[in-house]
Amino acid sequence: MTGSDPSKDMIDYDPHHWWRHLLKLRGGILQEIVGRLGVFTIWTVAVTWFHLNVHKVDVPATGHTLAGTVLSLLLVFRTNSSYDRFWEGRKLWGGIVNETRNLLRAAALNIRSPDLLRRLAAWTAVYPYAVTRVLRRGGGLGPAAAVLPPAEIERVMASRNAGLAVALRMSAVVAEARQLGFISDIVQMEIDRNVHLLIDYQGGCERIVKTPLPFAYMLHLRRTLIVFILGLPFALVESFGWATVPVILLIAHTFLGIEEIGVEIEEPFGTEDNDLPLEGISESIANTLDELVPWRNQLIASPALSYAGAPTGKEPSSEA
Amino acid sequence: MTGSDPSKDMIDYDPHHWWRHLLKLRGGILQEIVGRLGVFTIWTVAVTWFHLNVHKVDVPATGHTLAGTVLSLLLVFRTNSSYDRFWEGRKLWGGIVNETRNLLRAAALNIRSPDLLRRLAAWTAVYPYAVTRVLRRGGGLGPAAAVLPPAEIERVMASRNAGLAVALRMSAVVAEARQLGFISDIVQMEIDRNVHLLIDYQGGCERIVKTPLPFAYMLHLRRTLIVFILGLPFALVESFGWATVPVILLIAHTFLGIEEIGVEIEEPFGTEDNDLPLEGISESIANTLDELVPWRNQLIASPALSYAGAPTGKEPSSEA
Amino acid sequence: MTGSDPSKDMIDYDPHHWWRHLLKLRGGILQEIVGRLGVFTIWTVAVTWFHLNVHKVDVPATGHTLAGTVLSLLLVFRTNSSYDRFWEGRKLWGGIVNETRNLLRAAALNIRSPDLLRRLAAWTAVYPYAVTRVLRRGGGLGPAAAVLPPAEIERVMASRNAGLAVALRMSAVVAEARQLGFISDIVQMEIDRNVHLLIDYQGGCERIVKTPLPFAYMLHLRRTLIVFILGLPFALVESFGWATVPVILLIAHTFLGIEEIGVEIEEPFGTEDNDLPLEGISESIANTLDELVPWRNQLIASPALSYAGAPTGKEPSSEA
Amino acid sequence: MTGSDPSKDMIDYDPHHWWRHLLKLRGGILQEIVGRLGVFTIWTVAVTWFHLNVHKVDVPATGHTLAGTVLSLLLVFRTNSSYDRFWEGRKLWGGIVNETRNLLRAAALNIRSPDLLRRLAAWTAVYPYAVTRVLRRGGGLGPAAAVLPPAEIERVMASRNAGLAVALRMSAVVAEARQLGFISDIVQMEIDRNVHLLIDYQGGCERIVKTPLPFAYMLHLRRTLIVFILGLPFALVESFGWATVPVILLIAHTFLGIEEIGVEIEEPFGTEDNDLPLEGISESIANTLDELVPWRNQLIASPALSYAGAPTGKEPSSEA
Amino acid sequence: MTGSDPSKDMIDYDPHHWWRHLLKLRGGILQEIVGRLGVFTIWTVAVTWFHLNVHKVDVPATGHTLAGTVLSLLLVFRTNSSYDRFWEGRKLWGGIVNETRNLLRAAALNIRSPDLLRRLAAWTAVYPYAVTRVLRRGGGLGPAAAVLPPAEIERVMASRNAGLAVALRMSAVVAEARQLGFISDIVQMEIDRNVHLLIDYQGGCERIVKTPLPFAYMLHLRRTLIVFILGLPFALVESFGWATVPVILLIAHTFLGIEEIGVEIEEPFGTEDNDLPLEGISESIANTLDELVPWRNQLIASPALSYAGAPTGKEPSSEA
Repeated sequence: MTGSDPSKDMIDYDPHHWWRHLLKLRGGILQEIVGRLGVFTIWTVAVTWFHLNVHKVDVPATGHTLAGTVLSLLLVFRTNSSYDRFWEGRKLWGGIVNETRNLLRAAALNIRSPDLLRRLAAWTAVYPYAVTRVLRRGGGLGPAAAVLPPAEIERVMASRNAGLAVALRMSAVVAEARQLGFISDIVQMEIDRNVHLLIDYQGGCERIVKTPLPFAYMLHLRRTLIVFILGLPFALVESFGWATVPVILLIAHTFLGIEEIGVEIEEPFGTEDNDLPLEGISESIANTLDELVPWRNQLIASPALSYAGAPTGKEPSSEA
Repeated sequence: MTGSDPSKDMIDYDPHHWWRHLLKLRGGILQEIVGRLGVFTIWTVAVTWFHLNVHKVDVPATGHTLAGTVLSLLLVFRTNSSYDRFWEGRKLWGGIVNETRNLLRAAALNIRSPDLLRRLAAWTAVYPYAVTRVLRRGGGLGPAAAVLPPAEIERVMASRNAGLAVALRMSAVVAEARQLGFISDIVQMEIDRNVHLLIDYQGGCERIVKTPLPFAYMLHLRRTLIVFILGLPFALVESFGWATVPVILLIAHTFLGIEEIGVEIEEPFGTEDNDLPLEGISESIANTLDELVPWRNQLIASPALSYAGAPTGKEPSSEA
Repeated sequence: MTGSDPSKDMIDYDPHHWWRHLLKLRGGILQEIVGRLGVFTIWTVAVTWFHLNVHKVDVPATGHTLAGTVLSLLLVFRTNSSYDRFWEGRKLWGGIVNETRNLLRAAALNIRSPDLLRRLAAWTAVYPYAVTRVLRRGGGLGPAAAVLPPAEIERVMASRNAGLAVALRMSAVVAEARQLGFISDIVQMEIDRNVHLLIDYQGGCERIVKTPLPFAYMLHLRRTLIVFILGLPFALVESFGWATVPVILLIAHTFLGIEEIGVEIEEPFGTEDNDLPLEGISESIANTLDELVPWRNQLIASPALSYAGAPTGKEPSSEA
Repeated sequence: MTGSDPSKDMIDYDPHHWWRHLLKLRGGILQEIVGRLGVFTIWTVAVTWFHLNVHKVDVPATGHTLAGTVLSLLLVFRTNSSYDRFWEGRKLWGGIVNETRNLLRAAALNIRSPDLLRRLAAWTAVYPYAVTRVLRRGGGLGPAAAVLPPAEIERVMASRNAGLAVALRMSAVVAEARQLGFISDIVQMEIDRNVHLLIDYQGGCERIVKTPLPFAYMLHLRRTLIVFILGLPFALVESFGWATVPVILLIAHTFLGIEEIGVEIEEPFGTEDNDLPLEGISESIANTLDELVPWRNQLIASPALSYAGAPTGKEPSSEA
Repeated sequence: MTGSDPSKDMIDYDPHHWWRHLLKLRGGILQEIVGRLGVFTIWTVAVTWFHLNVHKVDVPATGHTLAGTVLSLLLVFRTNSSYDRFWEGRKLWGGIVNETRNLLRAAALNIRSPDLLRRLAAWTAVYPYAVTRVLRRGGGLGPAAAVLPPAEIERVMASRNAGLAVALRMSAVVAEARQLGFISDIVQMEIDRNVHLLIDYQGGCERIVKTPLPFAYMLHLRRTLIVFILGLPFALVESFGWATVPVILLIAHTFLGIEEIGVEIEEPFGTEDNDLPLEGISESIANTLDELVPWRNQLIASPALSYAGAPTGKEPSSEA
C-alpha cells in the first residue's frame, strides 16, 4: 500500500566527510529558526542604533556571564535528553526488528504447517506498518496485507490500535497451532513471548509520542533564552559598536539551533528529515521475513540438516 | 466513578510552535516563584538605594564567578535528576499499559471461558485506577468497577493497598482458570507473569512518590541559591547602578525557575499541570481492553482464523 | 523486636514549601562541615591580616578561574554518582518490597495449605529485617519472628548472613509444598524465582555498603578542594579587603557542602538523617503481607470468585 | 577464509604508560584533522596580517566567552554519546561471546549426539563471522565454514542477512535434536533462548551501524565550530599579535580533535584503527568453542563426573 | 592455594573522616604523577626565568580560558566513564556473588544427593577464583580445589579459560542430577540458568579487561593536557612572577590527578590499591557457601521444617 518514498527517509550521511553538507539546507535547522533570528536581528539593530545615536543604554556583561553558564547547561542537557529519547525510540524499533525475526525463526522451526506459517509470516510483516499507523495516526498496512483476508484487514484498520490488533492475530495463529497439536504449550508460550516483547516495544514508542518534555521545562527554557538574547545588545553594544549585529546573530544561531535540535529529535517517529525511516525499516523487516519461509522448505529438503520426522504432515508430538 | 477532567490533564503542546505559549501562565512556574522573586527584588532595591545614597557596599564579582559555575552545575544536575524521575515514572505507567494489554491478550486466546474472561477484563480495567488511588491517596476505581461484585469492590476500597488487592483478584481469576482445567500450569504461570510485572511497576511508582530528593541535597541547594542571590546586588551595584534591579530580577528568575522545575517534575503522579495524566491513561487502557473481549468472539467466529476445537465449551487439554 | 523509632527515619518533607526548613539543623550538613569551615575561616583571617598589615601576598585570580571549572565539575559529578548510588539503593529496596508481595501473592493462590502459607508469610515478613541486620551489622528480626520456631530464629541470628539464611527457609517451605504435592515443579520454580530476585537485590545492597568511592578519587577531590580554598584568600584579598572573610566562608560552605552531601548519600543504608528508613519499609512490608493471608480465606469463601475445587483440604493436582 | 590481520586490529595499549604513544600518528586523529587545521591556519594568518598591516579588525572576546561554554558542552556531550555507542557496541559483541559459550555449554551437556553437537559447534563458530559480514557488508565465514556442507555455506553467503541465516541453522540443529528425542521441548526452548539473544545482539549492532547521529545535530555542531574558529582571530589578534597563529592552531586542534573522536568511535564495527577487533573476537570465540566439544568426551569418560546413563547412544528420556 | 593478602586488598575507608588519609601516599595517585609534575615544574621554572631575565614571552590568558572549559569537561567526563566501568565491574562481581548463592540454594533444596551437592558446592566455591585467574592471567583455584579430583583441577588449569571450564563442570553436575532422576528437566534448566548468568558476568569482566578507552580518545586528551600546561606559564608569568611556579604545580596536580584516576579505575580487576579485592570477595563467597551444605542437613532434621519425603534416599519424583 505505502511505498517507500526516499525523500521521506532520514538523511543518511557519512560523518567522515567533513566539509560536505555544510551548505545544505535540507535536514538542517536553519529554515526552522530563520524567523527567530530575524526578530532578534531587528531588535539588535534597533538597540545598537538607539545606543549610538540617541542615548547610551549599555550595561556590563557580568549578568550575561553569570546566567550564560546555567543557560548553556540547561540547553545542552535538554538536547541531550532529546537525543536519549531519539536513541530510545531507535532501540525500540530495533527491538521490533529483532522480535519479528525471532518470532518467525522459532515458528518456522516448530510449527510444521505451511498454511499457519504463511499466515503468521504475513501478519508479522504487517505488524511494523501497523505500529507506524499508530505512531503517525494514519497510513496503510504495507504490501503483505494483500495476502490476508480483506475482512480481517478492515477490522484491523477500524480498530483503535492497529498494532495491538495485528499482534492479537499473530498470537491467535500461534494459539491455533497448539490447538491443532503442532506445538506444546511450552513452545506456544515461548513463541508468544516474542509477541509480548513486540507489544512492549510498541507501547514504548507510543509513550515517547504521547509525552513531550514537561511543559514548564520547555517554557522556562525558551523564556530564559529570549530574555538572554534580548538583553545581549545592551551588554555588547558599547564595546562592539555595529559589530554587535553579526556577533549577536551568530550567538543567537548557536543557542537557538541547539534548542531547535532538541525539538526536532525528541519525537523521532514523524515524517520530517531527522525522523527515523520507519517505512524503510518496515520494508526491510518484510524482506527478511520473506527469506525465512522458503528457507524452511529448503532446510527440510537439505539432507545435511533433514529432520527425522516426516516434513509433509503433522507429527505426533509427545506433548499433544 | 471518576471522570476525566481535562483541566486536570498534563498540558499537551506542540513544541514546534515557538512563540505560542510564551505568555501563558498555566503550566509555567511563574506563579510559583513570584513570591521569591518579590523578596529578592525588595532586597535588591534596598541594597542599591543604600549603596547609591548612604554608603558604598560593593564588592568585586570574582566570588560570584567562582561559585556560579558550581551552583549552575548543581542546579542543572538536580533538575536533570528530577527529569529522570519524571521519565522513569512515565516508563512505569507505560509498563502498566503494556502489561494490561499483554495479560488480556494472552488470556483472551487461552482461557476459553467467557465468564472468567469478562471478570478478568473488568479487574484489569480497574487496576490502573487502583494504582492511581494508591499514588494519590484517594480516588475511585473507575467505570469498570460497576460490573464487579460490590462486596469485592468494598473490600478493595478498604484495603491498605488497592492496587495490590486488585492484582490479587486478577491472579485469582487466572488461578481459577487452571483449577477449572481451562489452562495448564505453564500457561497460568505465563499469564501471571504479567501480574508480577504490574506489581513491579506499581511498586516503582510508590517508590518515586515516597522518596523525595535527599533532604540535605535540597536544603544545601536552596541555601546556596539564596546566599548567591542575596550577595549579587553587592557584586553588581557599582557597575550597573539602578539597572541592578531588573538584571537581578532576570537572573533570579532564571535560577529559581530551574530549581522550581526540578520540584515540579520530581514526583509526576499528582494532579498539577505538569504531572502525568493518570486518569487519561487509565481511561485509554480501559478502552483498549474493551476492544479485546468482543474481538475474541469475532476471532473465533472468523473462518480464516477459526480454531479446530469447539469455541463454546471447555476443551479437554492434554495438561489437565 | 525492633520498633520503628520515628527519630531514626529519613526526613520526609514537602519540596513545594520553599522557605520552610531553611533554618533547620537536623538533616542538613551544616553540623558536619562546621569544623572545616572554622579551619578555613581562621586561615582566611590570618592571611587577610598578614596581607593588610604586614606584607602584600596577593596573586591574580586566573589560577582559581582555570582550576575552578574542573573542580566544580569533579565535585558535582561525584555528588551525582553518590545520588545514583542512593537511588540504586532505593530501587533495590523497592525490589524487595515488590518481590515479597509477588512471592506471597503467588503462594497464596497456589499453595493450598494454611500451615505452609502461614510459615511462608512469617519468613517473608522477617526477610527485610534480616537484610537490614546484614546491612547494618546488627539488629533484630522484627515482630514476625515471634511466631517462628525459636531454634530456627537462633540459627538465623547465628549465621554469617541472616538474609541468606531466611531466604533459604523461604525456599525450603516452597520446596516442601511441592514435596507434599500442593504445587507442580513449574509452579515451585516460578515462586522460587521471587526468592532468586530477593537475593539479587540483597546482594546489590551489600555491594553498595562494601564498595565506597575509589579511595584515590575521594582523596584527590579533597586535596584539590583544600588547596583551592587555602589559596583563595591570596586571590581575593587585594580586591575584597576584610570582605574576603565572609566571601570565602560562603564559597567554602558551597563547595564543602556539595562534597559532604556526596558522602552522606553514597551509602544510604545507615541510620543517619538522610539514610533510607529501612525499618519503616520493613514494617510496611509486614503490614501488607498480613493482609494477604486472611484475604486468601475471604477470597475462597467469596462466591463470585470461588474455586471449583474444595477450599478446605489438599486437592489432588494433575501434576503430582 | 579470512585470517586475522594484526594491522587491522584495534590498538591495544597500556594506559599506565603516560609518555609513550604521544608522538604516534597511527590511531590518533591528527592525520584526519590536519587539512582542517591547515585551512584555519591560513585564515588566521590572513586575518592577522590584515589587522597588523592594513586595517584593524579586532572585536572583544566577550562573544567567544559566551558561546564557548555552550559549544564546549555540546562538543563533549556529543563525544560522550559516541563513546556510549562504542561501549554499547562492545557490550553487544560481549553478549555474542557469552551466548555462543552458553549455547554450546548447554548443548554439550544435554544433546548426546556427537554428530549434532559437531554441526552445532561449527555453525556457532561461524556465527560471529557471519555477523561481521553483515556489519561490514562483506567478508567470509571463517575457518569453521570448511567443515560444513558447501551448499549450505553458499546459501548463507547468498542470503540477505548471513547472521540471521546462520542463526536459523543453529536453531534447526537444536530443533532436530528434539525431533530425534535427545532433548525435551523444555530443554530445546532453553537452548534456543541463546539463539534468541544472539539475534538480539546482532540486531543491536545493525542498529548502531545504520543510525548515525541525527543529521541536524552533526551539521549544527560543525557549523557552530567553524564560525567559532573563524571568528577567533578577530577576538585575539589585538592582544596576541602574531602569537594569534599558534594559539588558534592549538585551540582548533583541541576542538576539532574532540569532534573527530566523536566521529571515529560512534560506529565501532569498521576496520579503522579505533574500531573493535571483530576478527580477533571471532577467532577467540571459535577457539573457546573448540575446547568444548572434546571436553565433553573427556567429561563423560572421567569417573568422578561420569553419567549414570550410557554415554555411547541415545538414551530414552522421560520426556520423549 | 592463594591466601588473601590484606596488603593487596582495595583500601577500605570511612568517608566521614575528613582530615584523616589526607597525607597518605598509599592508594593515592601522587606517586604516579610525581614524574609528570617534575617535568612541568622544570619547564615552568625555565620559562619564568627566561621571561624575567632574558626576554618577555607572556601572552594573554584568553586562549587558556577558552580551551580550559572544553578540556575540563573532557577530563571529567573521561574520569566519569572510568568510574562507570569501575562500578560496572563491581556490579558484575556482585552478580557472581548473587548467582553462586542462588545456584547452591536452589540445588541444596532440590538435589537430594549429598555427594552431588558436595561436588557442586566445591566447584561453585572454585568458580570465583577461576574467574580471577582469567582476569589476572594467572593464580590458583582457591582452597576448595583441594577436595576436587586433581586430574580435573589440572585440566581446568590447562584450559584456555579456567572460568568457563569450571562453569561447565558445575553444569555437568546439575545435568548428572537429572540423569540420575533427582530433578526434572524444568528444575535442571532453572538451576542451570544461574550458570548461564555466571558466564554472562564473567564475560562482562573479560570485556572490561580487554577493551581500554579508545586509543584516539586517550591520546588526544593527553596531548591537549600537555599543550595546555606547557602553554600555561606564558599566560601567567607576567601577572604572577615567581608565584607562577607553585600555581602551575597545583593546577597541573589537579588536572593530571583527575586524568590518572581515570586510568587507575577503568580496569578494576588488577592488584593495585584502587582495584577491587577479588580475593576477598572469592573467600567470602566460599565461606557463605560452606554454611549452605551443612545447613541443608539441619533443615531436613528440623521438625518444624521437615519434609514429607524420606530425607535419606532418592525420592520417586513425578517427572522422572
